[in-house]
Amino acid sequence: MPSPTRPRKPAKTWGSRFAEGTHPLVDKYTLSLPVDRRLWREEIAASIAHSRMLGRQRIIRRADASAIVRGLRAIHREIEAGRFPWRDDLEDVHTNVEARLRQKIGAAAGRLHTARSRNDQVATDLRLYAMAACDRAVVAIRSLQRALLGLAEENRTVVMPGYTHLQRAQPVLLAHHLCAYLEQLERDIERFAEARDHADALPLGSGALAGVPYPIDRASVARELGFSRLCDNSLDAVSDRDFAVDFVAACSLCMTHLSRLAEEIVLWSSAEFGFLRLPDAFSTGSSIMPQKRNPDVAELARARTGRVHGQLFAILAMLKALPLAYNRDLQEDKRAFFEAEDTLLETIEVFAAMMPGLEFDAARGRSAASANYALATDFADLLVRRGLPFRRAHEVVGRLVRYAEERDKTFDELTPAEFRRFSPLFGEEAAKLDLDSALAARNAPGGTAPRRVAAALRKWWRRLDVRP
Amino acid sequence: MPSPTRPRKPAKTWGSRFAEGTHPLVDKYTLSLPVDRRLWREEIAASIAHSRMLGRQRIIRRADASAIVRGLRAIHREIEAGRFPWRDDLEDVHTNVEARLRQKIGAAAGRLHTARSRNDQVATDLRLYAMAACDRAVVAIRSLQRALLGLAEENRTVVMPGYTHLQRAQPVLLAHHLCAYLEQLERDIERFAEARDHADALPLGSGALAGVPYPIDRASVARELGFSRLCDNSLDAVSDRDFAVDFVAACSLCMTHLSRLAEEIVLWSSAEFGFLRLPDAFSTGSSIMPQKRNPDVAELARARTGRVHGQLFAILAMLKALPLAYNRDLQEDKRAFFEAEDTLLETIEVFAAMMPGLEFDAARGRSAASANYALATDFADLLVRRGLPFRRAHEVVGRLVRYAEERDKTFDELTPAEFRRFSPLFGEEAAKLDLDSALAARNAPGGTAPRRVAAALRKWWRRLDVRP
Amino acid sequence: MPSPTRPRKPAKTWGSRFAEGTHPLVDKYTLSLPVDRRLWREEIAASIAHSRMLGRQRIIRRADASAIVRGLRAIHREIEAGRFPWRDDLEDVHTNVEARLRQKIGAAAGRLHTARSRNDQVATDLRLYAMAACDRAVVAIRSLQRALLGLAEENRTVVMPGYTHLQRAQPVLLAHHLCAYLEQLERDIERFAEARDHADALPLGSGALAGVPYPIDRASVARELGFSRLCDNSLDAVSDRDFAVDFVAACSLCMTHLSRLAEEIVLWSSAEFGFLRLPDAFSTGSSIMPQKRNPDVAELARARTGRVHGQLFAILAMLKALPLAYNRDLQEDKRAFFEAEDTLLETIEVFAAMMPGLEFDAARGRSAASANYALATDFADLLVRRGLPFRRAHEVVGRLVRYAEERDKTFDELTPAEFRRFSPLFGEEAAKLDLDSALAARNAPGGTAPRRVAAALRKWWRRLDVRP
Amino acid sequence: MPSPTRPRKPAKTWGSRFAEGTHPLVDKYTLSLPVDRRLWREEIAASIAHSRMLGRQRIIRRADASAIVRGLRAIHREIEAGRFPWRDDLEDVHTNVEARLRQKIGAAAGRLHTARSRNDQVATDLRLYAMAACDRAVVAIRSLQRALLGLAEENRTVVMPGYTHLQRAQPVLLAHHLCAYLEQLERDIERFAEARDHADALPLGSGALAGVPYPIDRASVARELGFSRLCDNSLDAVSDRDFAVDFVAACSLCMTHLSRLAEEIVLWSSAEFGFLRLPDAFSTGSSIMPQKRNPDVAELARARTGRVHGQLFAILAMLKALPLAYNRDLQEDKRAFFEAEDTLLETIEVFAAMMPGLEFDAARGRSAASANYALATDFADLLVRRGLPFRRAHEVVGRLVRYAEERDKTFDELTPAEFRRFSPLFGEEAAKLDLDSALAARNAPGGTAPRRVAAALRKWWRRLDVRP
Repeated sequence: MPSPTRPRKPAKTWGSRFAEGTHPLVDKYTLSLPVDRRLWREEIAASIAHSRMLGRQRIIRRADASAIVRGLRAIHREIEAGRFPWRDDLEDVHTNVEARLRQKIGAAAGRLHTARSRNDQVATDLRLYAMAACDRAVVAIRSLQRALLGLAEENRTVVMPGYTHLQRAQPVLLAHHLCAYLEQLERDIERFAEARDHADALPLGSGALAGVPYPIDRASVARELGFSRLCDNSLDAVSDRDFAVDFVAACSLCMTHLSRLAEEIVLWSSAEFGFLRLPDAFSTGSSIMPQKRNPDVAELARARTGRVHGQLFAILAMLKALPLAYNRDLQEDKRAFFEAEDTLLETIEVFAAMMPGLEFDAARGRSAASANYALATDFADLLVRRGLPFRRAHEVVGRLVRYAEERDKTFDELTPAEFRRFSPLFGEEAAKLDLDSALAARNAPGGTAPRRVAAALRKWWRRLDVRP
Repeated sequence: MPSPTRPRKPAKTWGSRFAEGTHPLVDKYTLSLPVDRRLWREEIAASIAHSRMLGRQRIIRRADASAIVRGLRAIHREIEAGRFPWRDDLEDVHTNVEARLRQKIGAAAGRLHTARSRNDQVATDLRLYAMAACDRAVVAIRSLQRALLGLAEENRTVVMPGYTHLQRAQPVLLAHHLCAYLEQLERDIERFAEARDHADALPLGSGALAGVPYPIDRASVARELGFSRLCDNSLDAVSDRDFAVDFVAACSLCMTHLSRLAEEIVLWSSAEFGFLRLPDAFSTGSSIMPQKRNPDVAELARARTGRVHGQLFAILAMLKALPLAYNRDLQEDKRAFFEAEDTLLETIEVFAAMMPGLEFDAARGRSAASANYALATDFADLLVRRGLPFRRAHEVVGRLVRYAEERDKTFDELTPAEFRRFSPLFGEEAAKLDLDSALAARNAPGGTAPRRVAAALRKWWRRLDVRP
Repeated sequence: MPSPTRPRKPAKTWGSRFAEGTHPLVDKYTLSLPVDRRLWREEIAASIAHSRMLGRQRIIRRADASAIVRGLRAIHREIEAGRFPWRDDLEDVHTNVEARLRQKIGAAAGRLHTARSRNDQVATDLRLYAMAACDRAVVAIRSLQRALLGLAEENRTVVMPGYTHLQRAQPVLLAHHLCAYLEQLERDIERFAEARDHADALPLGSGALAGVPYPIDRASVARELGFSRLCDNSLDAVSDRDFAVDFVAACSLCMTHLSRLAEEIVLWSSAEFGFLRLPDAFSTGSSIMPQKRNPDVAELARARTGRVHGQLFAILAMLKALPLAYNRDLQEDKRAFFEAEDTLLETIEVFAAMMPGLEFDAARGRSAASANYALATDFADLLVRRGLPFRRAHEVVGRLVRYAEERDKTFDELTPAEFRRFSPLFGEEAAKLDLDSALAARNAPGGTAPRRVAAALRKWWRRLDVRP
Repeated sequence: MPSPTRPRKPAKTWGSRFAEGTHPLVDKYTLSLPVDRRLWREEIAASIAHSRMLGRQRIIRRADASAIVRGLRAIHREIEAGRFPWRDDLEDVHTNVEARLRQKIGAAAGRLHTARSRNDQVATDLRLYAMAACDRAVVAIRSLQRALLGLAEENRTVVMPGYTHLQRAQPVLLAHHLCAYLEQLERDIERFAEARDHADALPLGSGALAGVPYPIDRASVARELGFSRLCDNSLDAVSDRDFAVDFVAACSLCMTHLSRLAEEIVLWSSAEFGFLRLPDAFSTGSSIMPQKRNPDVAELARARTGRVHGQLFAILAMLKALPLAYNRDLQEDKRAFFEAEDTLLETIEVFAAMMPGLEFDAARGRSAASANYALATDFADLLVRRGLPFRRAHEVVGRLVRYAEERDKTFDELTPAEFRRFSPLFGEEAAKLDLDSALAARNAPGGTAPRRVAAALRKWWRRLDVRP
């Protein structure tokens, strides 16, 4: 920690009223540049649109507007090229850009801030960023969906036990199981589309909180920046961060989905399940146990889900009981937003890369799917089709399972006579139930019957080709 | 805590396989009836639609289907009339209804559970409930919007300071401030509409996890229950609770908005602000200090916002790293859902009732809005219009404020000569700036100019008349 | 929801200043009786101690003090017997008790509230309750520790794979694994002891916020109630809920430990792991799949852990940014506290009952512990003891594992010549490494060697006999 | 984001078993160096103690041990001097240090990892770090306590209204109010002491999870590193992160206290309260409104409290339902830990610097403390002392307040006759009650009487001189 001596006079945009500069610890504590610098594209785009409008509306001279636009474009190129002299003594991205503009074009730079405030400016930047971030999330999720769909397609005949309560319940196709994640991710895409829509309103023109006393043309600025509507109330415009909450909430739920997939990768690649072998490139070893193949990526994704949930709570706590309009608390929105975004995109990226290399052990899946009386429900359903009420059929098969279990036998090893002891309806046919017929029978819409799963795969191929 | 002695045999729907009944502590720990009983309407509606479909599809006999439907309708009437014999020894609402059905119509009741499972059944019930809960939330929010709009209308000429950082910043109309909450609540309505849309897909027909081996007609069930589409994947259908997260997240954000309003009610009704007087009917007193008028409703709303955030965390934590498909963990979705819903609706209800009685002290608001150099920005803007770059104008007025402050004078008390000492552009006109002209000047869209606010109120009246 | 008509005049302790009674929705929204009624023992105990002190100090007449004490004792008996007429129109437990006291002893009841306020009163009640709740938690945890220790003792020779990353890593004794939970729970006991200590200070005598203008004797009240010190600052005394946060935090971490155990119960009782069979009395079945044995208790404990975390968030959010001193927000502390307490105690209770019936499959554990090159580290350690640097030895064995894996052989199936191909240090002895020698070798303190584990069990037996 | 092409072979410590290197995205996703690099001091200290013990126990040659120690010391100097060549292709701090050691001392470096694993190593590092972090937190809190105490001392005669429900309740001394924060911070110190104690146990010697097969001497390592006891169970030792939760929980509560102080700074420095003037060095201005003095530091502290709460939830979520023993999820403990620590220390630092410059407006405080019938309770207490039961006295004064309020009079402006109209007990003395006598009367322990507050200040001076 620095050992600050005495207050110095920093280069603030608002310093003229104060006799003394801010304390260095204050500068350090309030500095947002390391975080908000990421908004530089949006900052420049919004400033260009604003200054062009000021020029068009004759609020500033057109020549000044042109100089400002030219200067901002030069700054854009500088930053892109990594040549921009970022200054930590200038608290944020806004001040850095404006100070640089002054170096480039002189006093006219001081006219850029006409009819705006940092309050509406930062809200505009973050909304622009949020819209783009939603688009990026959708593209990333689509790539993961494609990877999952490819995996499902390659393994379309693989059978495995479906689980409830982590107990083997009924056989399912692996492709059906993977499609469940496609559905989850599809909902995430909808959620990001909604979050984008919530971000899509222009705050600029709201001033510090009350609107501005200039004949501005907000609609043209919105058009130029790609907003489809205006924030309708200036107080709301500068104090609202709901769109950021929506984004972090969408990240939280998408990470939750990835954590469920991660948990299954961890389980399936254990020696006990043994359904899945991670490729070398996606396994890590042990510093001490040479035989280990650890699913570290999945484990980290699981833990980082909790971190994104933590960001959601941070941003909700930030907003709770905050009076209108702008309060400095709102600065912390960006840390939550960016951490959630980065974690999500990095996780999706590595997951999408990992999927194609996953190898399933079809034989092991099939054998597990047949064991443990997995067809018990099918026997009950058979009795139902022969006229027994379901509840009765369930009871009958329950007793049958207990009988077989006590004798350590599978259903296949029971004789027709043993079956009939539990219900005369069994007849000779009981033995005919097998894994494939059980699968094929679940042929109602949404079910795991191979015909249904094939149709689902076709649906997904169509959707993933057409959409972004 | 009970001191359970030895396991007894409870009336479970799945008991036939077990040699021994469950332990009383297990029954107590897993009992969900006190919570899920609230789903009885949905349970019965879904069971009626399911059994009618079973009859139409000849999966069960039409006579049995009719008997089941009649029995369920009778049960509906019993519950509505408060005459239903709820039994705690029957773990949940599903078992209670089915057991009662058996008492009413005998063995045919055992056919109701054909081609379904509690897993798809409870998901169906909760989705139906969620759609209705979203509708209720929208109706409640609309009523609060109307109350706020009425308050804004009544106080349309009241002026108060607008705040940033809880420092007086610029004057605004109270009606403009209240409209900021109308905007927030409008977004909540959109969010509940989206949450409703996410809930709107029928899981029934997914069975335990893999689909069902019967020729069911899911589309007709969906139509009868008011779902507009089917859950497309059986594994997803029984393991998905995203729609519940969406609902709790929507409640969390709406409560956050109410907590901001609550904070302002607390502030404004303090002796220091003194803008607001709570009606007696919405104040509480002190057990020891006779002079107190406490804004307890607002304070509790603020604290309960944190509780709803806690519910959101609970439901996200429940889903994190949960493998597919159904796990008993999911039972806890309902507690989070119902607590969030109840807290939100009760808070909106009492807020809506409280609004009409709020009395604003217009004189105090006006005086506060004029004090503390609140028109400083307007002086800066005046200099800008006379040609000074904004940054320069800001500096000039900053020095002017410091000058006045050191002499303990208001702007009004400064002479034109004093003004001109800071900038020759001031001329004689400086003194002409007053509160009303400052307000009127903020006339860009979204601003606080009375003309703009009047238009906003008209917009809201139109919207709140037309929509639900 | 009720459809309230017009404000009525409720029986408030603070109503005289108001022209009008509170609105029924306010009464409903602020009613705390259903929650705080649980504090009745503490309320009465604190009131008795307070009134006795008032009498001793001659602040009220001794005869009045005696009448109050007698009345409160009668009320205690009434509540205990379930005969107390709780009234929802009296907002909280304090008002109910005092109103009843007035019915019993008349006007003297009005002297009880001398030199105290509801603010210091409720803090006193909750601190008393918190101390007792910590004691209850310790007793409950001790019972679970004993159940786990018994289970460890019974299975002291059972071997199973130890896991890292859910991959089999090195063999361990099951008893060693169970002792890891004893350690976790021991830390929970320390944490509850600390939480108790934090609660152990008497707020009574702080009045509403500023102290009281009476010659009270706080120390004697503290002694009578079992507090070991006084809250030293009246403002802090009425606004502090840190002790409640500590309690909920202790519950959160203890539930987290139980959730880890729950996860292992779910894993181990899966068909894939197969180490554990749940007793019938602690398994639940499926409404549709007759063969299922579901670990519902463990699953619910896992989900309810998230709920307790949610309570912790709620109470922290409640306190965040709350100005001094008392605010009505603090009322919500009790809901978080009680829900955390109930969930924890119910979970411990059912876990303690479940442990004795768990049956481990020793053969399966042993076989799993030997498979998958589980002794690889031991081979590396053998090379180290023969002089190879660990990193080299690790590499050598890593290559050996890969070699064996590619040939689908176990270590046992490799010839000494094959071993020597990887390092001449192997000699003839390689084959001598076996499970038992590997276990016995981990004999450093804390290790899984049977000798160490036996000593650990002895430590625990001693500790669990002596302490509460 | 990088566009990785094909897997390369990284320099892992565990690579020998894998045919192929890890994917660059995996390296990026799992890289912990940027976070765990902060543990370098602890890493080196623990490695030195470990290798010295290995030498003493003849597990490795003493000469090798000496070479390792010398090498590690050289590395310590390199890092301290900023000359250490950190390599991102070496995943963590452990691998960086060991690889560098190999460069310095050659093959003997490979003997350092004998009888340890990264699992017990990282737990050791973090526990060492946690103990030091607790010490740092205590030192920081002490400095803030001193700053607050100095402020209280300087303003010991300042009177202000005490608030409940943000309504003026009873007059208090500002020093009394500030002492309430000293109490809160004192509890934080206790909590950090407890957290330190929980961290204070040595995991090293637990190996990967099961202990190590070498004759290690853990007690001597513990002594050398300053641990007072050993982790007793190897599985627990590598999977336990409770101590990290305790630390983050202590940070969460301490930040909560700071957020309460922050809220009061925001309130008191508003124009409405006007009790407090922030020094220029700790105020920030507006980019648009020249007259603003914003309490940004307090606002950011408030928001960052929510961020620390979010870290607590992240770490709890990480641990929830995590099976034993080590899982990669645990890597994320450090991000939560470090972010909580940094936020807390930075906030305390800037708060401690800000306190001395706060200027209170004693006249305004005094006038606010007298207004709004603040002495109402004192009038009630006066009636009690004259024999009226408190409840009656409360009612009488309640009516008196209402009477005065309706006539817009203060108590001072009422005549004795008007007083007597409400109770004959008032006599002539009523008017004698004034602010100072009301303060002096609250003289019970913990009260705001100047005598009591003076004693409290003396207590604090003594405590803050003696302790660290």
